[in-house]
Amino acid sequence: MCFRVTAMKNFDEELKRRADEAQEIVLDFLPKAGRFDRELVEAMNYSVGVGGKRLRPLLMMSFNRLYKGDGNCVRPFMAVMEMLHTYSLVHDDLPAIDNDDYRRGEYTTHRRFGEAAAILAGDGLLHQAYETALKAFGLCGDREAVIRALLIFGDRTGINGMLGGQAADVMNTSKNIDDELMYFIYEKKTGALIEGSMMIGAALAGASDGDLEIIRKIGADIGLAFQIRDDILDLTGDESVIGKPLYSDERNNKKTYVSVNGLDKARKYVETLSSEACGLLEGLGRDDGEREFVRELFMYLCSRDK
Amino acid sequence: MCFRVTAMKNFDEELKRRADEAQEIVLDFLPKAGRFDRELVEAMNYSVGVGGKRLRPLLMMSFNRLYKGDGNCVRPFMAVMEMLHTYSLVHDDLPAIDNDDYRRGEYTTHRRFGEAAAILAGDGLLHQAYETALKAFGLCGDREAVIRALLIFGDRTGINGMLGGQAADVMNTSKNIDDELMYFIYEKKTGALIEGSMMIGAALAGASDGDLEIIRKIGADIGLAFQIRDDILDLTGDESVIGKPLYSDERNNKKTYVSVNGLDKARKYVETLSSEACGLLEGLGRDDGEREFVRELFMYLCSRDK
Repeated sequence: MCFRVTAMKNFDEELKRRADEAQEIVLDFLPKAGRFDRELVEAMNYSVGVGGKRLRPLLMMSFNRLYKGDGNCVRPFMAVMEMLHTYSLVHDDLPAIDNDDYRRGEYTTHRRFGEAAAILAGDGLLHQAYETALKAFGLCGDREAVIRALLIFGDRTGINGMLGGQAADVMNTSKNIDDELMYFIYEKKTGALIEGSMMIGAALAGASDGDLEIIRKIGADIGLAFQIRDDILDLTGDESVIGKPLYSDERNNKKTYVSVNGLDKARKYVETLSSEACGLLEGLGRDDGEREFVRELFMYLCSRDK
Repeated sequence: MCFRVTAMKNFDEELKRRADEAQEIVLDFLPKAGRFDRELVEAMNYSVGVGGKRLRPLLMMSFNRLYKGDGNCVRPFMAVMEMLHTYSLVHDDLPAIDNDDYRRGEYTTHRRFGEAAAILAGDGLLHQAYETALKAFGLCGDREAVIRALLIFGDRTGINGMLGGQAADVMNTSKNIDDELMYFIYEKKTGALIEGSMMIGAALAGASDGDLEIIRKIGADIGLAFQIRDDILDLTGDESVIGKPLYSDERNNKKTYVSVNGLDKARKYVETLSSEACGLLEGLGRDDGEREFVRELFMYLCSRDK
């Protein structure tokens, strides 16, 4: 775990306050229904509204504050990343892919609205993510920063990022994959959006290319730790806290870091990754208080129980 | 039909030459497969490769030339629009939506690669469309023109454009829809991409906002005429030429302009719309020869047999 310089007072309250703020920002950028798109917009907004930790917007906001960025630039991108994340979940849950009925304790979109609506709602959220990012040209004074953020967003989300990992995962389900492919899936499917969130937050606040490269590494460490923690929770968690059934990896015959290395080694690796991330964070950015919050956030993410 | 000032020599050869050029440009921007995304990229490229008329890139190129635009700016966007169009077809063909097995005489993506791969390939093409558009920042000297094109693209393709029309169509299948909703679906599902293609071509070449508004109207007329021609062909066409089964609207109990007004009135309305578009085109742009080509292209689109 990270070395705690001084325990941050009221971290839990601050996390709750920020998650609520992130939630408000995300909802603010959701589309309003018109006369002929009521069902589509309802399904889109349902999927986003079901909630979750708002982890990616939170990380983006923190890395923006770490560099003392302008909130007007980062706000649309916080919504963008959550819409993107939600679209990926909606399509992932579809009958032809994971066929999941519950997510965060609520019906998945296709269970609630039907399969056709869920396909279109996922598409709609991906469209809306990009359209919201384009709105930043009107909201943020620094057009070059918006272009830089858009390029990171494209690279981390499409076939070289999240979707590439998602496809590699889906197309190799139940196959005996090698370690290299397993790490590729971790890195792209989960890591890419976490890396991207941190990088976009910092890029919008003018972080140097050198700093962005360090942040990419921090994101890769935290992304991997986060996913292994997820795999651990799938075996040891509390179903009523997590909001979905346990043992899904075993049921799907899925190779994970835990299934290969066991729980003990997995727990230690999460600690190693989190320490490495905290080491890289040392001295980064311009706001010491925010750096302390990020450190606490990393600790929370690597030891969470949901 | 349009009033023919002078019959253009060799229109058919020129159309064929340009379609081949557009095809080459689109293929140029398709992703290359890496080690772990071979199946995804194969399914994406299959869907685009199956072909079609490349109508949207052709229209974009023509409206760019009409304003004497720089080819480096329009080339990526030609590929962008074709990827977007293809993604919409791949998802539209899915079992949960139209459940079509053939498209342009070949297997649809889900019939060839399975349903999960088709969902992900459609997603991949939508990601790739935006990422290709972002590449224009590096290829085209005029960043403001690229931003303008991106904003038109977002508006014409997402829930306020193509996807909105697609969703309204899917969610009202077999329902007795009113005329207003029928026109909304025509306007958004087909019209929006045709409008968008013309507008982006002109915007990238510096057309004024006033001209763009006229072009939007031209696109709306041609889009509607194009779709009604499609409905006519669904009843009177040659299955082996079209590459998909006839009478799909009747089978799906779908209200169309033809089912409401009959074939004769529909044919006349296509002529009226095409005349109106040609009237609006009069005097637009800076290249008289290209204007002549556009006029011929409109005539071809409104009388095509596939």
